[in-house]
Amino acid sequence: MHSLFYLVPVFGIVALLFTFIKSAWVTKQSDGGDRMREISKYIAEGAMAFLKAEYKILSYFVIIAAILLGIMGSSNEKSHWSIALAFVIGAVFSALAGFIGMRIATKSNVRTAEAAKTSLSKALKVSFTGGSVMGMGVAGLAVLGLGSLFIILKTIFAPEAGVDSVEMERTIEILTGFSLGAESIALFARVGGGIYTKAADVGADLVGKVEAGIPEDDPRNPATIADNVGDNVGDVAGMGADLFGSYVATVLATMVLGRETTSMDNFGGMAPILLPMLIAGLGIIFSMVGTWFVRISDTAGINTAPVQRALNMGNWGSIVLTAVSSVFLVKYLMPESMTLRGHEFTQNGVIGAIMVGLAVGTLMSIITEYYTAMGKRPVMSIIRQSSTGHATNIIGGLSVGMESTFLPILVLAAGIFGSYICAGLYGVAIAAAGMMATTAMQLAIDAFGPIADNAGGIAEMSELPAEVRERTDVLDAVGNTTAATGKGFAIASAALTSLALFAAFVGIAKIDGIDIYRADVLAGLFVGGMIPFIFSSLAITAVGKAAMAMVEEVRRQFREIPGIMEGTGKPEYEKCVAISTEASIKKMMLPGAIAIVSPLIIGFVFGPEVLGGFLAGATVSGVLMGMFQNNAGGAWDNAKKSFEKGVDINGQIYYKKSEPHKASVTGDTVGDPFKDTSGPSMNILIKLMSIVALVIAPTLATLHKDSIRMHQQEKKAMLEQLISGEASAKPACCEGSTATDCCKEENGVVTCSGGADCPCPNCTEKENTGAPAIEATPASGTNAPAPAPAQ
Amino acid sequence: MHSLFYLVPVFGIVALLFTFIKSAWVTKQSDGGDRMREISKYIAEGAMAFLKAEYKILSYFVIIAAILLGIMGSSNEKSHWSIALAFVIGAVFSALAGFIGMRIATKSNVRTAEAAKTSLSKALKVSFTGGSVMGMGVAGLAVLGLGSLFIILKTIFAPEAGVDSVEMERTIEILTGFSLGAESIALFARVGGGIYTKAADVGADLVGKVEAGIPEDDPRNPATIADNVGDNVGDVAGMGADLFGSYVATVLATMVLGRETTSMDNFGGMAPILLPMLIAGLGIIFSMVGTWFVRISDTAGINTAPVQRALNMGNWGSIVLTAVSSVFLVKYLMPESMTLRGHEFTQNGVIGAIMVGLAVGTLMSIITEYYTAMGKRPVMSIIRQSSTGHATNIIGGLSVGMESTFLPILVLAAGIFGSYICAGLYGVAIAAAGMMATTAMQLAIDAFGPIADNAGGIAEMSELPAEVRERTDVLDAVGNTTAATGKGFAIASAALTSLALFAAFVGIAKIDGIDIYRADVLAGLFVGGMIPFIFSSLAITAVGKAAMAMVEEVRRQFREIPGIMEGTGKPEYEKCVAISTEASIKKMMLPGAIAIVSPLIIGFVFGPEVLGGFLAGATVSGVLMGMFQNNAGGAWDNAKKSFEKGVDINGQIYYKKSEPHKASVTGDTVGDPFKDTSGPSMNILIKLMSIVALVIAPTLATLHKDSIRMHQQEKKAMLEQLISGEASAKPACCEGSTATDCCKEENGVVTCSGGADCPCPNCTEKENTGAPAIEATPASGTNAPAPAPAQ
Repeated sequence: MHSLFYLVPVFGIVALLFTFIKSAWVTKQSDGGDRMREISKYIAEGAMAFLKAEYKILSYFVIIAAILLGIMGSSNEKSHWSIALAFVIGAVFSALAGFIGMRIATKSNVRTAEAAKTSLSKALKVSFTGGSVMGMGVAGLAVLGLGSLFIILKTIFAPEAGVDSVEMERTIEILTGFSLGAESIALFARVGGGIYTKAADVGADLVGKVEAGIPEDDPRNPATIADNVGDNVGDVAGMGADLFGSYVATVLATMVLGRETTSMDNFGGMAPILLPMLIAGLGIIFSMVGTWFVRISDTAGINTAPVQRALNMGNWGSIVLTAVSSVFLVKYLMPESMTLRGHEFTQNGVIGAIMVGLAVGTLMSIITEYYTAMGKRPVMSIIRQSSTGHATNIIGGLSVGMESTFLPILVLAAGIFGSYICAGLYGVAIAAAGMMATTAMQLAIDAFGPIADNAGGIAEMSELPAEVRERTDVLDAVGNTTAATGKGFAIASAALTSLALFAAFVGIAKIDGIDIYRADVLAGLFVGGMIPFIFSSLAITAVGKAAMAMVEEVRRQFREIPGIMEGTGKPEYEKCVAISTEASIKKMMLPGAIAIVSPLIIGFVFGPEVLGGFLAGATVSGVLMGMFQNNAGGAWDNAKKSFEKGVDINGQIYYKKSEPHKASVTGDTVGDPFKDTSGPSMNILIKLMSIVALVIAPTLATLHKDSIRMHQQEKKAMLEQLISGEASAKPACCEGSTATDCCKEENGVVTCSGGADCPCPNCTEKENTGAPAIEATPASGTNAPAPAPAQ
Repeated sequence: MHSLFYLVPVFGIVALLFTFIKSAWVTKQSDGGDRMREISKYIAEGAMAFLKAEYKILSYFVIIAAILLGIMGSSNEKSHWSIALAFVIGAVFSALAGFIGMRIATKSNVRTAEAAKTSLSKALKVSFTGGSVMGMGVAGLAVLGLGSLFIILKTIFAPEAGVDSVEMERTIEILTGFSLGAESIALFARVGGGIYTKAADVGADLVGKVEAGIPEDDPRNPATIADNVGDNVGDVAGMGADLFGSYVATVLATMVLGRETTSMDNFGGMAPILLPMLIAGLGIIFSMVGTWFVRISDTAGINTAPVQRALNMGNWGSIVLTAVSSVFLVKYLMPESMTLRGHEFTQNGVIGAIMVGLAVGTLMSIITEYYTAMGKRPVMSIIRQSSTGHATNIIGGLSVGMESTFLPILVLAAGIFGSYICAGLYGVAIAAAGMMATTAMQLAIDAFGPIADNAGGIAEMSELPAEVRERTDVLDAVGNTTAATGKGFAIASAALTSLALFAAFVGIAKIDGIDIYRADVLAGLFVGGMIPFIFSSLAITAVGKAAMAMVEEVRRQFREIPGIMEGTGKPEYEKCVAISTEASIKKMMLPGAIAIVSPLIIGFVFGPEVLGGFLAGATVSGVLMGMFQNNAGGAWDNAKKSFEKGVDINGQIYYKKSEPHKASVTGDTVGDPFKDTSGPSMNILIKLMSIVALVIAPTLATLHKDSIRMHQQEKKAMLEQLISGEASAKPACCEGSTATDCCKEENGVVTCSGGADCPCPNCTEKENTGAPAIEATPASGTNAPAPAPAQ
């Protein structure tokens, strides 16, 4: 094996070293006084309790799934029982990624609050370092896991085999198990964490802010600890597992297609497989470099501009550096020209595809920001519609969400088309890989938000001076913007990744395409399109129900605990934590099961082509529902936030507590499960279903071999007929004029009077001589050959 | 031509005769006192003003579109300039259908109110007769128009040509213009009417009920006349045009596929074309018969049960009679066996497909009713979630709407699959035609609701005795249920019709299928999926904005007109009517344009296959969004209505004006544009886009001839490679064990030691003798042949 392969896990190890060093630095910071320590302990314990409960349930799932996978793997010669092992490793790594994130987040939050006593710059440093520990941890684990597993598997299964050998195909197939493990844990973590955090958030707000009229994070509110725990398990651990899964899936999809690519390179044809892993490695290195840019001056004022600028510097710095170095990498690694499934493409095409990917990601971020940012037309329209009540606010948000799919879909469609033009299906995959390269930095930026949010909560509950909360609020506000743009990026990369996986699936299932003109494939398209709807419904229902349970518990405590409102009675925080934990664990099961089981049923019962239709339907509908929900939620959130500084509606200024503000709170509450539970789950949902399909593809190819073959032969016959049919078109005398010129019909008998120059289409050659064609049946003539769809 | 063809317009004339007789009967009824006459005059004038304004704008559109169509038609030998004429006739008929409906509705409303003074049975008789005038008028116009136009076109263009001739293809192609005209007017009427009615409704409710605390339809509310006009232009005229378009499209789609069907029948091969028209004719006759069943005893109590029973009798009576007679018709008309695009099917298969269609329609109605009916789990869950506020009510409704897609999509997918199994693509089309056969009855049942609603409004405004309102309320409540189930039926038939049109499009565009594995087709799928989102967004934004304008106008009048609240000052009703009219006309343009223009752009620029992907995406997403919005809206509505009799939430009974009720009003208001503007438009949207595609299909086939041919040849080559590639599979010794057994690689040189029994896949036959294969390049080997997608 070429030594470059060994470089991949090294990148991972470097990232993990960075994680340990930075983590130690965060731990070294002061964690404030007793009160702060107490509160942060509550939060940390609550978070750990959730993770324990979650991982316990998931371990049963992993064991059962691994056994089934092992059986399936060992029964197919293109796979192996060890796919079960890869699956378990993927699952464990994904869980570990979530765990690392949550550990550092529950340490950084209190230390950020403490640092905010000094300055904004210090607070940013602590919170962002916390975020980057997580980002680098996740990326490091992914690259380490994928890289070393590939080396091990190749050594065992294909030590000296060429890239196009059956052995190599098998090696990569086993590797898909790793991604399956990662993505399934990601789905449960995202859904479970999303339900937890929003149940606590909505529950705390509805009674605390709306009914009791106490501010957010008030220690008198029994749900406040659960709310802060939620930020950690949902926005940190959930997101960590999510991005770990996405990152792995994207790299893997490119590897699968890379293996199929015929490439005359200097690495034994391995360059197309190596490229995505090395780009990921470069992304890690330049994400580290990027973290140095994220700093602001000690004298910076308390506003969002310098913080946003610093984060942008870090983000764009790492993206640009990775992009530039990728160009050199491609030039070094890839041959002049390659072929994938009959489509030839060049080195420059690959570079072009990476650039298309980055352009799509950038445009998606910009558009998403436009639809969710304060002061822009969409959010302003929601604000205006808040003046006529709750209902018009909701209508406004829903229509903004639906509208926000327009441009991103056009960008995405152009991206699919563009990256395909550049480098075929490999281009689509590498475009996604390019976008995901700086996942470490993306995640650092995403994770610092909830840390700052938590720090604000701790400051409030510990009754720290107001300026501390002001500083953490600045960080939180920036975090909200980056979270929204991050989601735009994530859905775009998920769409491209799913398409790459989809393409890989077609190859491995040995089918020739996915023809939605076939009735069964079309039925699959409908059923697939429905999955994101039912999934979203289950997720937001779960939040609604858990929130209601939370509301009732908080109301009970307010009613029954004496002195709670005066601050003399102590709320029973742990009861609220328990409600959120239990509800989220229980309610994540069904949506998760649907995501995993439905492609299995469709694939095994109806075959790979119907499964392909199903995946396409789910991907399209999932991307749309993801954008709709994320952006509607983000826009509602910022419409509500706009009232804090006062908004002008028809010449009158409205502030918090005004009627329009109350309407905007309704929108925000509806948006919460949209943007933090069901919306972000769509990414994982579509990728997970594609990976499930990819894992079962070799088995499906064997199982449905005969019907696939039959369809192909039918299709071939039909094409032959279609092509030859048009080649032997009728002479002009029959085409241009009416049939009566040449062929007359009387009492069911056709007279072919045109002779050989003008043959009647219903008559045989012999009949076309002018003599009446006896027993010719014009009514039953055969049409111009038309497609014959096989069901 | 067989004389049976002449029977079709006769059915239409019979229906129109029925319409005139019944209409005269309604006119003969008493229209009450001066006050009632005055109010009904306001409503009738407002409605007519809207229709005038709408038709004026649409006439420009029709003229321009007709010119373009004429040019396109005359430039393609498969079409003709007279398609423009067919288009204009279709548009005029559709407008006429809306006009007839509205005329009779604005007559029946006041007469129903007057009849309700006597008894519920009398009121039902008047309102249902009004509805059946409309239903029969719409169906009669459709059958008359389609049937006679077919006869005329065939006489001109294909007088003696066989069913499979070019001439006949052209005849049917010209006929698609009729459907295009009908469906485009339907879209504008539905969207314009939907915006009108909901802007007035939401505006009237927000200020009247919520702010001023006056009841619905109170004459002091300036928006109340606009609200009642809205019921007529949206729920009656809009729906009339809608169902006219659907009905025509469904029959036409079946005719297109019927023409392609090879059928050895006694009608010159015309039986498959004749069948849908005759079934529609039978549907009309048995709908007339069905209207006799819709009557209740004079002594029936004031409750919904007998009314619902009477309507069910009428509905089911006509459906069962039509179904049974269809069996005989098929047996008489169709030959033992037919073939469509290589798929053979039988007479019994056709009967089976019709039954599948009826089963799908019935199941859809039942499921829709479950999700929107009072007392069932979904509505109950929204009621419960209303107790925790506006936000949880909204979350509840949204999740019910999303969940409600689950079973209908499974039913629909099974229906597609089942009807295809029965009779191929012709089966899919005839299933839809069977479902739509009793459109006249469906429409009568649908239209009687708004008439009763209006009657209630007139009773309220004329200050008639309370029992009058009670009686009309009973009719209105039943009307709400039938409206919801009608929508379930409509979306199912739209989906099947679109698929039939889609199949017809594939045939006429001369493509072999729609392979979403191609990057450009997949991009088309994404863009198509987005259309229903942007369309819905535009529609509900329009309602939101128009409602806000209405709110401000009503507030202004309350403020500025002295004595308005005391009933001494007269509100300026006409100003509110003008606001709704103007807003709806202005705002229907863009969504309408998107529906018509987007398939044109996609088709002409990217070719028919990409357009096929686009249509599939739009159909799937449109069906899902239609169900989601209709059912969420219906469920919210009934959740709110449940509070009128009091609901039990956790042991406490809540009534109107309670906090949970206020939350439920918010949900209902959000649901209004969902269920009456954007939701029902989805039907038309997906059908209209398919018809546009069908109309341009011959032109696309010519325009993109070369690229279509190229793709077909590439695909054929790929299939040949795939089929032959697997046929010559490698022997077991290379497949089962690792490659090292037979073929060793050292320093880039492969030793093929396996000999002839175990050939190395990377070596030529000669090399597989055990001798080292010099210059073999394992790294760049060709893979097992895999699909080569053409972009």
